[in-house]
Amino acid sequence: MIKTPYLLFLGDAPDQLAAKVAQGIKDWRPQNAVGQYRMEGCGADLGLRDMDLVEAKAAGAKTLVIGVANRGGVISKEWKKVLVAALEEGFDLASGLHNLLRDEPDLVAVAEACGCALHDVRLPDAKYPIANGVKRTGKRCLAVGTDCSVGKMYTALAMDAEMKTRGMKSSFRATGQTGILITGNGVPLDAVVADFMAGAVEWLTPDNDDDHWDHIEGQGSLFHVSYSGVTMALIHGGQPDALILCHEPTREHMRGLPGFALPSLEKLRDTALPLAQVANPECEVVGVSVNTQHLSEEEANAYLAEVEARMGLPAVDPFRQGAGRLVDALAAI
Amino acid sequence: MIKTPYLLFLGDAPDQLAAKVAQGIKDWRPQNAVGQYRMEGCGADLGLRDMDLVEAKAAGAKTLVIGVANRGGVISKEWKKVLVAALEEGFDLASGLHNLLRDEPDLVAVAEACGCALHDVRLPDAKYPIANGVKRTGKRCLAVGTDCSVGKMYTALAMDAEMKTRGMKSSFRATGQTGILITGNGVPLDAVVADFMAGAVEWLTPDNDDDHWDHIEGQGSLFHVSYSGVTMALIHGGQPDALILCHEPTREHMRGLPGFALPSLEKLRDTALPLAQVANPECEVVGVSVNTQHLSEEEANAYLAEVEARMGLPAVDPFRQGAGRLVDALAAI
Repeated sequence: MIKTPYLLFLGDAPDQLAAKVAQGIKDWRPQNAVGQYRMEGCGADLGLRDMDLVEAKAAGAKTLVIGVANRGGVISKEWKKVLVAALEEGFDLASGLHNLLRDEPDLVAVAEACGCALHDVRLPDAKYPIANGVKRTGKRCLAVGTDCSVGKMYTALAMDAEMKTRGMKSSFRATGQTGILITGNGVPLDAVVADFMAGAVEWLTPDNDDDHWDHIEGQGSLFHVSYSGVTMALIHGGQPDALILCHEPTREHMRGLPGFALPSLEKLRDTALPLAQVANPECEVVGVSVNTQHLSEEEANAYLAEVEARMGLPAVDPFRQGAGRLVDALAAI
Repeated sequence: MIKTPYLLFLGDAPDQLAAKVAQGIKDWRPQNAVGQYRMEGCGADLGLRDMDLVEAKAAGAKTLVIGVANRGGVISKEWKKVLVAALEEGFDLASGLHNLLRDEPDLVAVAEACGCALHDVRLPDAKYPIANGVKRTGKRCLAVGTDCSVGKMYTALAMDAEMKTRGMKSSFRATGQTGILITGNGVPLDAVVADFMAGAVEWLTPDNDDDHWDHIEGQGSLFHVSYSGVTMALIHGGQPDALILCHEPTREHMRGLPGFALPSLEKLRDTALPLAQVANPECEVVGVSVNTQHLSEEEANAYLAEVEARMGLPAVDPFRQGAGRLVDALAAI
């Protein structure tokens, strides 16, 4: 559990895209984002108040979150100065970088001296059980994709936000580093040891109120040969009541796998649903979420209408249209 | 890679069943089993020559393999004496115990002083890649089960042995600790980090001669919610050309999961084959392997005949009947 709220460290991000983790935190958990910390030459701006460490501390920030990708695979000397100063100021540090904070002896030493925590969200920080398959109370929704990186996290966050707006009981359950930094907790599923994957998902989505929805962040795809095992563990460990099918219609082949075609939405439905029903016989496919960022407004609307007619399910792009109709579909089951 | 041949350590095994790892080595790789080492009170006997360390060394043994389960979750003082003496005699040690050899400071120190290796086959000893899905040369066969522990390893070992007897090119590819100790190498797939599971299977079953068969040891089941992710990674990383369906007909529920019924063989076929064809569109289901140990000879024959007629596939118990008809089916594709 990462202490909130955060000061978002943008460092010397060359552009806005490099700060997308910080952007995600600001978009989805604005209450966690007290301010931004930018170094000389920073090309990103979240529109938050620029703060130094002392100001942020006074404003209540508890953790400095590295919300930017680093360059060249090292934590630079310039970053180091800020990170050390933050620890000395009493901030915890949280990072999703491949370079681990815990592999930097100076950060470890200063953190220990100051009594502050270093959170590397790429690595599990709990011991997970073997899954037992016992039915849990409460409801769970899982987004599954025709491919990786088609908008599963966005869909889950948007549905969670919509439910909260409506006063419904809802949690976003993060399974990747960006999601974990956004919410302050979760399971970095791709780094969990094979035997414990499904158990980690059970652990992440425990018994809850009957009218509470967990929106479980999806990973990979059943059709992506590199990561399908992780997806399978989400489907069985998550024992979802509802599946949302996610798709990006302009993708020419599976991400990183030239020669592998994307499955149709029908094939995804017919593959994922029977597998989900092994863990939860009541599971239903309730909607389709399409990432139409590479289509014009007109093309997007035509595509969504065609999918909706073909599949007999609400089909929306939550970025363009919000997740209201997907939440309606969940509320109806 | 564990150096062969072995001296098989049976310790103070209370009975034959406790020495089943050693039994597996002796059954499937008799050329690797130079002799057995038994302590006072040992209730197991593999029918191998009893040897002390000096005799075994003289007979060419290079590794002392712990072929017995330990009791109480600790490596006892009595075992320790033998293990230390073996290292001093120049043996490597290999173990599939939950208690790791590398966690015993005395063994580590002696091994280092003697220049000997400690092999804990429960843990990966290589850095595996992310799977890339590229089609590999050679043929691969994977056994998939309606449940865990229905005879997938036995089936693969029996098919490998039958092919070798016929002079065909064949390898057994171990994915669990018993299999790794039997063959001296492999991947302990349940201990691999999620992102690298499918890549580890690709690594284990590389390009080979066009007429060479890899018999990949199966793990878990697509229908076992605790371990299905591991099975999925085997199906996609292994890119099998042939699937063998494995079943144990007297099982009342999924292993360790009361309330979860086993799927039918038809359901296993219809689930596993389309998933396998994502990685290898040419994949076929070629046969059924049934573990009939809890049936009489007559019941077993009746059951196998019924399955064979129903499924239109050769259905055999390789323990009772050998794997000849399964190999015939592979040779025909």
